Amino acid sequence: MDIEKLRLVLREFATERDWEQFHSPKNLAMALNVEAGELLEIFQWLTEKESLNPDEKVLANAGEELADIILYSIRLADRLGLDINSEVERKIEANAKKYPVDKAKGNAKKYNEF
Amino acid sequence: MDIEKLRLVLREFATERDWEQFHSPKNLAMALNVEAGELLEIFQWLTEKESLNPDEKVLANAGEELADIILYSIRLADRLGLDINSEVERKIEANAKKYPVDKAKGNAKKYNEF
Amino acid sequence: MDIEKLRLVLREFATERDWEQFHSPKNLAMALNVEAGELLEIFQWLTEKESLNPDEKVLANAGEELADIILYSIRLADRLGLDINSEVERKIEANAKKYPVDKAKGNAKKYNEF
Amino acid sequence: MDIEKLRLVLREFATERDWEQFHSPKNLAMALNVEAGELLEIFQWLTEKESLNPDEKVLANAGEELADIILYSIRLADRLGLDINSEVERKIEANAKKYPVDKAKGNAKKYNEF
Repeated sequence: MDIEKLRLVLREFATERDWEQFHSPKNLAMALNVEAGELLEIFQWLTEKESLNPDEKVLANAGEELADIILYSIRLADRLGLDINSEVERKIEANAKKYPVDKAKGNAKKYNEF
Repeated sequence: MDIEKLRLVLREFATERDWEQFHSPKNLAMALNVEAGELLEIFQWLTEKESLNPDEKVLANAGEELADIILYSIRLADRLGLDINSEVERKIEANAKKYPVDKAKGNAKKYNEF
Repeated sequence: MDIEKLRLVLREFATERDWEQFHSPKNLAMALNVEAGELLEIFQWLTEKESLNPDEKVLANAGEELADIILYSIRLADRLGLDINSEVERKIEANAKKYPVDKAKGNAKKYNEF
Repeated sequence: MDIEKLRLVLREFATERDWEQFHSPKNLAMALNVEAGELLEIFQWLTEKESLNPDEKVLANAGEELADIILYSIRLADRLGLDINSEVERKIEANAKKYPVDKAKGNAKKYNEF
């Protein structure tokens, strides 16, 4: 995935359609949540085990919603002037510090509950 | 962003911590929604205009939440066996067809409302 | 619960604090989603079975988030001029029609998938 | 709204359909979030001002989603053994203490930011 290319594709897509007026960060955060809700809907009545053995329909739907979420994330970062690559790198480093193996192993506690 | 590398980093991160037991697609879809909700919280009382002129704190917080969302998206795709790159490419093509410039220009209608 | 009384209490609460400016339906829908996300967070790493045997902390947190959700629902309905009681009654009748026992029994299909 | 009656109606509705198996608190929290996301979708591309002057379609849709949210809240409280009336009362008292008029007036700060 070439985030820089996607960023420009999405920007042009919006410009051509005169959609900047709708693409405030506030609205894009809403749109991203709407897509996240649609992703959640796919799994709401499945057991965890069933979700690990998804049928074709679940897979196709989940793939679509995940793509929507990624695209809105890139678009929102662009509208905020954020470099999403750096943010992701920084987060991975932060998670490694917040969740050291010896404390996090085998439990799902939040870092401030260790 | 090297999605393939991130996918493997996240996988190892989970394996080292014995977190596969928590990372069902169902749970990951929930976790992604929790992060999306935290992103929404940043913008809930801002006007659209204010969201277009974010201060340092808004930017830092939004960057963190966006990174969480991206990482959970990659991790969820991995647990479903989905190629997130293909999904994103396919979605961009689909959007271009669903939202032709002449119909979508200047309005925020859903494609099934044209 | 006396919804009519709650509606007026919430209205006065907002007026006293000069919060009408923040309480657009758009913003209230966001706030409601933020609280819903916090509710989700409580259960994200619990199994279904664990969620059926909640400890004191889970119960206390869930109670708080549910209260927030109810209050924002009442406030949003008020700002839209909707009678939430009628909406709830209508929905119960609609659900009974959409999910007849003989079709819905023992499965979690959506009504349009019967 | 007679919450106690609604609680029993919803319980019977689920029992008749053999839906207890799906109605874990975890799943109900997911379902509530899905409905909250559908509520958000209604307002995502509207300005705040537009959301204050909703047309018939917006009103009808919002009424339906709010009803779904209220019903899942009652159902979830029932499955957790929570008295939603007490939770709401307690929350109103807590909010009055967390947001005293002199500190909260005219701003949307969170109570821990005063």
